[in-house]
Amino acid sequence: MTRYELGLKKLEEIDGQAGTNVIESLKDIAPDFATYLIEFPFGDIYARPGLDLQSREIATIAALTAMGTATPQLKVHITAGLNVGLSREQIVETIMQMAVYAGFPAALNGLFAAQDVFESLEPDTTC
Amino acid sequence: MTRYELGLKKLEEIDGQAGTNVIESLKDIAPDFATYLIEFPFGDIYARPGLDLQSREIATIAALTAMGTATPQLKVHITAGLNVGLSREQIVETIMQMAVYAGFPAALNGLFAAQDVFESLEPDTTC
Amino acid sequence: MTRYELGLKKLEEIDGQAGTNVIESLKDIAPDFATYLIEFPFGDIYARPGLDLQSREIATIAALTAMGTATPQLKVHITAGLNVGLSREQIVETIMQMAVYAGFPAALNGLFAAQDVFESLEPDTTC
Amino acid sequence: MTRYELGLKKLEEIDGQAGTNVIESLKDIAPDFATYLIEFPFGDIYARPGLDLQSREIATIAALTAMGTATPQLKVHITAGLNVGLSREQIVETIMQMAVYAGFPAALNGLFAAQDVFESLEPDTTC
Amino acid sequence: MTRYELGLKKLEEIDGQAGTNVIESLKDIAPDFATYLIEFPFGDIYARPGLDLQSREIATIAALTAMGTATPQLKVHITAGLNVGLSREQIVETIMQMAVYAGFPAALNGLFAAQDVFESLEPDTTC
Amino acid sequence: MTRYELGLKKLEEIDGQAGTNVIESLKDIAPDFATYLIEFPFGDIYARPGLDLQSREIATIAALTAMGTATPQLKVHITAGLNVGLSREQIVETIMQMAVYAGFPAALNGLFAAQDVFESLEPDTTC
Repeated sequence: MTRYELGLKKLEEIDGQAGTNVIESLKDIAPDFATYLIEFPFGDIYARPGLDLQSREIATIAALTAMGTATPQLKVHITAGLNVGLSREQIVETIMQMAVYAGFPAALNGLFAAQDVFESLEPDTTC
Repeated sequence: MTRYELGLKKLEEIDGQAGTNVIESLKDIAPDFATYLIEFPFGDIYARPGLDLQSREIATIAALTAMGTATPQLKVHITAGLNVGLSREQIVETIMQMAVYAGFPAALNGLFAAQDVFESLEPDTTC
Repeated sequence: MTRYELGLKKLEEIDGQAGTNVIESLKDIAPDFATYLIEFPFGDIYARPGLDLQSREIATIAALTAMGTATPQLKVHITAGLNVGLSREQIVETIMQMAVYAGFPAALNGLFAAQDVFESLEPDTTC
Repeated sequence: MTRYELGLKKLEEIDGQAGTNVIESLKDIAPDFATYLIEFPFGDIYARPGLDLQSREIATIAALTAMGTATPQLKVHITAGLNVGLSREQIVETIMQMAVYAGFPAALNGLFAAQDVFESLEPDTTC
Repeated sequence: MTRYELGLKKLEEIDGQAGTNVIESLKDIAPDFATYLIEFPFGDIYARPGLDLQSREIATIAALTAMGTATPQLKVHITAGLNVGLSREQIVETIMQMAVYAGFPAALNGLFAAQDVFESLEPDTTC
Repeated sequence: MTRYELGLKKLEEIDGQAGTNVIESLKDIAPDFATYLIEFPFGDIYARPGLDLQSREIATIAALTAMGTATPQLKVHITAGLNVGLSREQIVETIMQMAVYAGFPAALNGLFAAQDVFESLEPDTTC
């Protein structure tokens, strides 16, 4: 399996439809960037053993909440967290904890992003 | 148990000696801040159920690596990660993944922080 | 008076209706976080002597402008600045000064946030 | 020629209508800031010899993409890049490269900003 | 009085010896930048009426603490804060408050910077 | 030529000895990360047509100066800029311009990094 094929499989497993949408959205402006996005983050990094996918999504949700500059990607990864089996509670706890490291506004904005994602989904069955 | 007592217990469980050192270092400049640091992050947040301590340390290591502005605190939490049972491999994977979200320099600087911590410890027995 | 009661009093004094709205907005996604938000920032920090509320709001407006990642919270604190007696001019000066420390885009975006807040209020009677 | 006159000339050469709009938008909230914006960035910095305007716009597009906190200003400078003769391809390459230094979300958000700008313009004749 | 002369006067009033040192340190690498630093921040911004110097230093200390990327400049402005009449307590309060907006590590690193400055000075007579 | 081989060639062309040092420094802590660093930034991105290496280094120097969290990597790329033919003047101009977008402290710290690099080299023959 090539890095591209492995990455595409991981992207679909983790991000689901949202991942496919991102790839699609790049096809006019920078199609090669879609390839890199599949190959490096998903074909190289998320495909590695040594850290399970739930832990990887906790890391990503934490980082994007703390950075505060990537709301669309944070929402994709909140969905991804649910896809790989995190509960809504685990996601909310991860985001709340960021108040300690990046301040209350970062945590608040992360919580509102989570609320947007949760409201757009089926009624919660994870907690 | 008061928030302070619970926080102090959690701080010692998670950060060990490094946590005590931070509290000690604040006694001249801002002793009340040491109290807040024990009470809110440790007495309120880390004491919550809903996310295990290993996941909480992954979240913190990820965020501090991505932010890139808090090397001393990152080192404290790399040690804390080991204290709560993360393997060196899990910590390194978490940091490497930040290349995707915060760039290669952030991940590189995080890896060098981890190397400093690991070298200062007993020979690795976690992986 | 408990930290919660003191914090709620300070929150209402400083942020007014906007503060109450934030608390309300958290009730579905993370009600405990609303409690922390009342207790630590408002019950612990803003309730401290040693720095008057006008100076505290200048500090917050400066920081949120410089960080550039928290526009909704910046607007709340521009309103809060007016609530505790800062003039529009003092707020605009604080934001403009951030061009020196965080760049012209940060200051510009802060000024536009201030304009949004000012336009939503009664005609200015502070300067 | 005063700094103001030189800056205004440079602003119009580089940012075109978008620059004039920014100046106009400041006239109620902070007219002096419009003066500073003309004088220091454009009258002092962009007017300097030693680096051509195409290189200066590459630097600005790179920085604003990496920072991720100034989307409106990034769009102004993507337009400015085209104004001073950069091709769409050079702009897209600059933004894509930021994935290495500031992470994939920063690059993605920069690419979507570029797409917005390009779609609002005449059909591309630069590449 | 030219902007340069006014700026130099303000720089000396506010930053004292530390300001002169920064100007001196630029003479080999970028002497024109020393001129800009005197003219725009000090000749234009700090010279403005509408916000007193104590408030301006609170704003700067808050922003630099929150940003966490400019420790040398933060130390210069902690000294400047004392120069314009802020007490050590007001400075410490400003920095502590940043835990709310930029996280505990930012506040901790700011407090340690303040401790370094205070220890390098005469025994405190401000509080 | 594989991505790895192409990346290694580009890394040596651009970063020279400093690049080799970074790869070497990763061999204990995260050898796979050295591979990724060679393959994605250098084998994929810097190897692309569409933007010359001098422009790519201007973009990187600008971004790292503006971010302010990656001094070691900024120094590597200041050296890299010289390696691909930028003059010291072009590098200094790029860094100074960042005062506009990321503030004076970011530009100052970038200039001091450049001074460190220049002083460690042979006497300047580029301008």
